[in-house]
Amino acid sequence: MRQSFDDTADRSYGPRHLPLIRKAMAEQGLDGFLTPHEDEHQNEYLPAANDRLAWATGFTGSAGAAVILKDKAAIFVDGRYALQVLDQVDTGLFEVRDLVEGGVPAYLETALDRGSVVGYDPKLHSPDALERLSAAAARAGARLKPVDPNPLDRAWGAERPAQPAAAVVPHPLEFAGEASADKRRRVGESLGKAGAEAAVITAPASIAWLFNIRGGDVIRSPLPLGQAILEEDGSAILFLDPAKVSEDLPAWLGNSVTLQAPDALPAVLDAFKGRRVLVDPAQSSAWYFERLRHAGAEIVRAQDPTALPRARKNAVEVEGARQAHIRDGAALSRFLHWVSSEAQAGLPDELEVVRKLEGFREATGALKDLSFDTIAGAASNGAIVHYRPTHRLAKKLETGSLLLVDSGAQYLDGTTDVTRTIAIGEPTPEMRDRFTRVLKGHLALARVRFPAGTTGSALDGFARAPLWAAGLDYDHGTGHGVGSYLGVHEGPQRISKVPNSVALEPGMIVSNEPGYYKTGGFGIRIENLQVVTEPAEIEGGERPMLGFETLTLAPIDRRLVDKSLLTREELAQLNAYHARVLAVVGPKVPADVAEWLEGACAPIA
Amino acid sequence: MRQSFDDTADRSYGPRHLPLIRKAMAEQGLDGFLTPHEDEHQNEYLPAANDRLAWATGFTGSAGAAVILKDKAAIFVDGRYALQVLDQVDTGLFEVRDLVEGGVPAYLETALDRGSVVGYDPKLHSPDALERLSAAAARAGARLKPVDPNPLDRAWGAERPAQPAAAVVPHPLEFAGEASADKRRRVGESLGKAGAEAAVITAPASIAWLFNIRGGDVIRSPLPLGQAILEEDGSAILFLDPAKVSEDLPAWLGNSVTLQAPDALPAVLDAFKGRRVLVDPAQSSAWYFERLRHAGAEIVRAQDPTALPRARKNAVEVEGARQAHIRDGAALSRFLHWVSSEAQAGLPDELEVVRKLEGFREATGALKDLSFDTIAGAASNGAIVHYRPTHRLAKKLETGSLLLVDSGAQYLDGTTDVTRTIAIGEPTPEMRDRFTRVLKGHLALARVRFPAGTTGSALDGFARAPLWAAGLDYDHGTGHGVGSYLGVHEGPQRISKVPNSVALEPGMIVSNEPGYYKTGGFGIRIENLQVVTEPAEIEGGERPMLGFETLTLAPIDRRLVDKSLLTREELAQLNAYHARVLAVVGPKVPADVAEWLEGACAPIA
Repeated sequence: MRQSFDDTADRSYGPRHLPLIRKAMAEQGLDGFLTPHEDEHQNEYLPAANDRLAWATGFTGSAGAAVILKDKAAIFVDGRYALQVLDQVDTGLFEVRDLVEGGVPAYLETALDRGSVVGYDPKLHSPDALERLSAAAARAGARLKPVDPNPLDRAWGAERPAQPAAAVVPHPLEFAGEASADKRRRVGESLGKAGAEAAVITAPASIAWLFNIRGGDVIRSPLPLGQAILEEDGSAILFLDPAKVSEDLPAWLGNSVTLQAPDALPAVLDAFKGRRVLVDPAQSSAWYFERLRHAGAEIVRAQDPTALPRARKNAVEVEGARQAHIRDGAALSRFLHWVSSEAQAGLPDELEVVRKLEGFREATGALKDLSFDTIAGAASNGAIVHYRPTHRLAKKLETGSLLLVDSGAQYLDGTTDVTRTIAIGEPTPEMRDRFTRVLKGHLALARVRFPAGTTGSALDGFARAPLWAAGLDYDHGTGHGVGSYLGVHEGPQRISKVPNSVALEPGMIVSNEPGYYKTGGFGIRIENLQVVTEPAEIEGGERPMLGFETLTLAPIDRRLVDKSLLTREELAQLNAYHARVLAVVGPKVPADVAEWLEGACAPIA
Repeated sequence: MRQSFDDTADRSYGPRHLPLIRKAMAEQGLDGFLTPHEDEHQNEYLPAANDRLAWATGFTGSAGAAVILKDKAAIFVDGRYALQVLDQVDTGLFEVRDLVEGGVPAYLETALDRGSVVGYDPKLHSPDALERLSAAAARAGARLKPVDPNPLDRAWGAERPAQPAAAVVPHPLEFAGEASADKRRRVGESLGKAGAEAAVITAPASIAWLFNIRGGDVIRSPLPLGQAILEEDGSAILFLDPAKVSEDLPAWLGNSVTLQAPDALPAVLDAFKGRRVLVDPAQSSAWYFERLRHAGAEIVRAQDPTALPRARKNAVEVEGARQAHIRDGAALSRFLHWVSSEAQAGLPDELEVVRKLEGFREATGALKDLSFDTIAGAASNGAIVHYRPTHRLAKKLETGSLLLVDSGAQYLDGTTDVTRTIAIGEPTPEMRDRFTRVLKGHLALARVRFPAGTTGSALDGFARAPLWAAGLDYDHGTGHGVGSYLGVHEGPQRISKVPNSVALEPGMIVSNEPGYYKTGGFGIRIENLQVVTEPAEIEGGERPMLGFETLTLAPIDRRLVDKSLLTREELAQLNAYHARVLAVVGPKVPADVAEWLEGACAPIA
């Protein structure tokens, strides 16, 4: 088993660790310390050694922050984690506050005493975030102070796990589709347009993509932790822990890439006097900006220059994604067959559901890792958006309830992410009504055609409108970008009500995952990945339009569809999708599954 | 007649005026001069005295810019004006460039010689725009220099019209709905939250709203040109030309408003040392920022604090808008009746169409002004989005073509803006197909329900999707905000594919105006104004949803509707709208019009 069902932190963490952190703070003359969830690499999923927020508070969600003061403390989470934080964190020690509404700055403004000094680790904060935090502290008459060492790390001490050191290996051209030298030349040339001569690249996914390498430093993503400096001519310095450099790596990287140890980075930056260097404030911490400023470099604040080229998958990556999804769809169909037969009778618990699905994926022989811990939410657990089943929380399936399963896999040729919601026993009319509305939104976002320049914010509403019309909504984004054997959540494109200016371009992969959640009742989500297609003429039209090709291939539970709520167009679209699933996946599954699939994919008349 | 059909500028303007401007530039030691369309008040519609771009180039569009160098010049317009600029401007003198793609900065970067000095009038540029322009000039090794006097104004000399000086009059409470003192107290209190003690207000619409006054300085909008300084306690200084101050104005403004002449403003700003002053960089020119910086004020860059309160119409203003639209809908119905009867036979020209419509509005006895020059575009003229009929350009109506009429009125109780497209003779199947797709988008945006926090960018796609699906689109925004007896184009809300973060709130009025344009053929646009409604429960739902109440009441040409393209929901929605038009407007029109209206509003079965 790759997935563990143990709690990685618990309510005792705060009471045990907060005094240690406060002691270390006091020794460094600090009245407070800021603890974001992000680590030195702005990772979403953290190596255990960098999950400082969990160690300090017990909270294991993927976003959040804490402010630890001498006599009080607060933890900040967003709406997704409103329930989880109450379960994991000792609320006698930590006041729970909203990460988005007001957030940390509003707290600092009211909670800090005049004259107090609050420390922060400059490697853990973006320069923009720090500016807002500093302004808020100033309004309270307090100030922020960069500290090194990090007092939390000192408090953690010997108990802290080692930094990861998984081997970094080549990612072959048959999967990458473009040689690193070509990528570096192409991105290098783009630096001039941004007014820069060189770029500091620190996002692990960017490092992996640019050099066609993969690592194992972060759970669930084949990311190598490191940094790089890319020059306009495409040459580069790659900073990697020598312990991680696999034998064939130097030859793979070639002559135009110099390998150096990470402790050589500060001196390299210090030599940048007078040079125009691009740094992405959303990806690189304040530490880089401070270091380069002190060195006398001219900083060009701009988006990571690999972000868009990486997001636009090339033809080899798109074809890889198709193959990965056929493979994954076959494993998933075996799983859905099991849920629809044995599990309906045996009513196993969520852990068994997770084990089964992992087993089918493992049996493909191609599984490199899960792309995230499988969410299997039975009945009311399905309504907890970022639920992860553990020994402590797992439920058994119940007849007359729904099972929500959100899962994904890392294969060499692609990353998958799929959610299906399955009726256990007979669903209620309410469940079918909600499911069908979610399905209507999902189908609308799958079939929409749109002109070049359209952003994901402009499409988000299509997935929500059928819920809105019924006085319903869901409190998460509709779609995120997905990497190619990389992170399962990657930008810069996304489909969200949050305004963003990134146009969807051919080759970009996004998820399409509207949902509905009835707290204490059930959860519904339907998620496919889809790739933006090339602009194509439409008969009788004047302007070529982009659109989506659906990658994910697995049946959608027909028993949950109320066809009276579907238009003819929607019904035809659902039937066509199921026909495609049957045609493509049918031949890849054992006979009993194939037989079941025929029924599961039969057209709704 | 209020509307004139004369050309206000022509192709001879460039050849006649460019040498004069270059001479004035040379006398001031300048190698170039920047000429934006905007004036000192960032107006959209300009007093003749401030339409510098038209005087320099001949171009009369509502957005644009020119760069005049010693030996070359360029004019910048957006896609709306791509055709018009070729008609109005001598392209032997002015290179035509895109205002959006690259725009002025890209031109400066390539066109300026090293060491050259380009002048600008700091009262005509926003600080953000200037920053981009300065950076571009610097990349070319040139520099920008603020100049006073403006060399173009010197060149214009005695030929320049006088500055407007229309009387500024009270806007009574029965229309404004909230006393100025209450508005000022409310907005004043909000300054503290933005970290300011006072605000500089320069947008004419903000001045008008905040003090409940109206003026006549700008054609088509009852705007008073002036400036104000608002204090946290709600007291204010209002800078108005004494010649414009009507007799009863001082008493109307009350004791907490000090009236001063505009030439007193610089000295008032100079005394702001150490004070925290809010200024909106989108509304107030670089001149204010420079002046305050020199004075030692602490500038708080933030949105004009009246922008949102002004956009959220109060109950009196919303009821006023309803009444204005009933009155306007009756005038418009008389006009549509005329188009559908006499005009179909007589085939008059566009000027007669404009005269007729203005006549019906004038006959209401309540017309204060048009809200903009009526666009009556027959046949191919309808495809020119910002067309205005003139003696030179006007066409006669043609059988088998479409007539697009976009018009609006200023009444004391509200501002209207409505577009109808009418078949002249028998429409072609293509016209009906396109019209019905535009209608589907219009209906979708009229019926959508959405949660609090939703922006206009998130709704824009609903109006476009039926066109997108057919490979079609339109190159303008879908909706703009509208004032209450104020500007017909007012922010901050809008419905557009351009990302914006302004949530739609109850009381905001927006237009809903998708279109389709076949160059050289015909133009289609369907425009109603609609007001955002209070959040309301939906039966069976969980979250209250906002929505729209349609204000505009006039029939949509049924002969252009291809009902086979409409869903049952869309058909029911159109029929319900027509039933409402008939019920509300029918009793307000003469008998022959009422009889015609019955047919025009009859349900489509």
